[in-house]
Amino acid sequence: MITLTTDFGLTDTYVAQMKGVILTINPNATIIDNTHNVEKFNIRMGAFMLTSISPYFPKGTVHLAVVDPGVGTARRAIVIQTKHSFFVGPDNGILLLAAQNQGIEHIYEIANHEFMLPKVSDTFHGRDVFAPAAAYLDNGVNPHAFGPQINDAVIPRFATVAHKEGWLVGEVLHVDGFGNVITNIQTPEVIEKQYIDVKFCQTFIKPKIAKTYAQTPRHQAIALIGSHGFLEIALNQGNAAKKFHVKTGDKIEVKFV
Amino acid sequence: MITLTTDFGLTDTYVAQMKGVILTINPNATIIDNTHNVEKFNIRMGAFMLTSISPYFPKGTVHLAVVDPGVGTARRAIVIQTKHSFFVGPDNGILLLAAQNQGIEHIYEIANHEFMLPKVSDTFHGRDVFAPAAAYLDNGVNPHAFGPQINDAVIPRFATVAHKEGWLVGEVLHVDGFGNVITNIQTPEVIEKQYIDVKFCQTFIKPKIAKTYAQTPRHQAIALIGSHGFLEIALNQGNAAKKFHVKTGDKIEVKFV
Amino acid sequence: MITLTTDFGLTDTYVAQMKGVILTINPNATIIDNTHNVEKFNIRMGAFMLTSISPYFPKGTVHLAVVDPGVGTARRAIVIQTKHSFFVGPDNGILLLAAQNQGIEHIYEIANHEFMLPKVSDTFHGRDVFAPAAAYLDNGVNPHAFGPQINDAVIPRFATVAHKEGWLVGEVLHVDGFGNVITNIQTPEVIEKQYIDVKFCQTFIKPKIAKTYAQTPRHQAIALIGSHGFLEIALNQGNAAKKFHVKTGDKIEVKFV
Repeated sequence: MITLTTDFGLTDTYVAQMKGVILTINPNATIIDNTHNVEKFNIRMGAFMLTSISPYFPKGTVHLAVVDPGVGTARRAIVIQTKHSFFVGPDNGILLLAAQNQGIEHIYEIANHEFMLPKVSDTFHGRDVFAPAAAYLDNGVNPHAFGPQINDAVIPRFATVAHKEGWLVGEVLHVDGFGNVITNIQTPEVIEKQYIDVKFCQTFIKPKIAKTYAQTPRHQAIALIGSHGFLEIALNQGNAAKKFHVKTGDKIEVKFV
Repeated sequence: MITLTTDFGLTDTYVAQMKGVILTINPNATIIDNTHNVEKFNIRMGAFMLTSISPYFPKGTVHLAVVDPGVGTARRAIVIQTKHSFFVGPDNGILLLAAQNQGIEHIYEIANHEFMLPKVSDTFHGRDVFAPAAAYLDNGVNPHAFGPQINDAVIPRFATVAHKEGWLVGEVLHVDGFGNVITNIQTPEVIEKQYIDVKFCQTFIKPKIAKTYAQTPRHQAIALIGSHGFLEIALNQGNAAKKFHVKTGDKIEVKFV
Repeated sequence: MITLTTDFGLTDTYVAQMKGVILTINPNATIIDNTHNVEKFNIRMGAFMLTSISPYFPKGTVHLAVVDPGVGTARRAIVIQTKHSFFVGPDNGILLLAAQNQGIEHIYEIANHEFMLPKVSDTFHGRDVFAPAAAYLDNGVNPHAFGPQINDAVIPRFATVAHKEGWLVGEVLHVDGFGNVITNIQTPEVIEKQYIDVKFCQTFIKPKIAKTYAQTPRHQAIALIGSHGFLEIALNQGNAAKKFHVKTGDKIEVKFV
């Protein structure tokens, strides 16, 4: 089983080219689209989206993620083997967050041309390098056949939470299609409190802590631990990101009252 | 075979999480996306979209539909067994129109935690309750194992047509991507007439009745029985909804001249 | 294996209806979406998108493409058998570019109602005619069973390049989701030069010739042979189409300095 996470969109043919390459090497592959609507070149958003699906897929799944502003430069192509799955993509941090959650065992550079398309373009390694690697992994090829083991993979800086004068300082990891603001803050404290202090840039709010979107009056701000396991700020049947002018990457500070 | 109809969109990872859950329970499932672009919380649009595909799928297909503004409240999760298929989703009316067309046999509440994820969130029953139920049904589990049979499922009020002083009074069920206005009116009368009177709110038009979009001059209004079996108002190579300022849910009155 | 290329979008249920029809005839079919976001009625864009994926799929793949403004008129439905694959769709030019690249062997009209749905609508041959034909081809039915062989299929006029006073005169085949401007010009000359003269309507530019998007400073114009094999005009991490006000179908003239 192979999942795909990219910033290629659903209008262009890039994703279908990758699927053609995979199915030529491995006609029995089951290919599942995660999303192809990662914001162009937004590695953090891609990493978040990969992290949010990988716990739900079976052992042995190959997760392929391509958000690759450095394609054609010297950045490496890598495969990460974890206790549960494989992750394939560029060495720019997109794979690390999801892979660390599963326990990283080995990281290999994809260097062996035997497992790439015969002609590797300078512009589309998704098709020429990563899709073949995923297909061969799904076929049972051992990842150490792809190239040398490495121990200096790029570590992404997002998804760290600081403590500052009683506040937790994190950031907005993602705004979902409902306008729910998903932060990088994970804490069990939330559940025992009634209200929470939240600062976004210039805005200060004090949402009620709820268990479900529907527990509060329509359009009232709530804080909850969402289905991703992260602290979310939401409006019941409304768009919190629009109301509070918040976007991915914004700083968020929270204090439990 | 399992079809998916949701309002989750194609940017977020919700759909892929559901697929991961299904494929973990049933690695051989064939999963077909109907649409994930149902307008947020628009149960009627979801019901229409489910109704328009269900006749084309093989016997035994499991149709999963999640447009679920009441997630986390006391609304029930149900499975409907028809003469032809299974329908899985929240008990808010989204399943009924499609299921009634196939002949409803039994309706069960999904209450048995054995067929849910170990931890059921308050915010995402699509993944935690409905996806597992669909996967187990596709695996051959009998739906009566899920919970008690019920006979008071929510009946949706949309898709009824009234007769008033010679006019048929219905509503716009859906505006498709071409701007074709699909109504909830089904009548064989249309085919024998040349013109039809149509009132949308403030607009009165008298489109020609045609068999195909291409039969009339470019951008001329036509009425036809569309591929869904419903009366449609369209413009050949144009956007009827934009031209006549019509949207889903608007009242439409028609009279055969 | 069956690929789908349409202008039906991802909101409507047309694509899922086609898949239901295919899977009813052939429950084991592997169906791959190319794109459903071809601009409505834009046959050239559909042809480009089909051409860009067909080299990457295995021998025997059935490529189904439906951009069909003439549905319900006398335009024919056809299947093209090439040395490598099958192409199914309306006889309006959408299939020819991709099929010619593989070497056309035979073209048949789809006329035999035995291989269509029992009731063929006037508005949706994608579901009623083309989807069944693709499913039967994938099941091993010989295409000559579908109807008479023909030798007067519509030949599309796009994708020709003229020579005029030292300039190559082509057109913009496609603008991709990154804003890269893909032309219909294929030439090995590019690689040996440093700069290229480019005229779009009123705009004159002189981009550097590069091998990758990342080789130049951010937002600088570059010309390269893209992953499709065609000459592209791009901006590193920017949107070339927006900057130069270029859209699909625009004339482009280039001269190697």
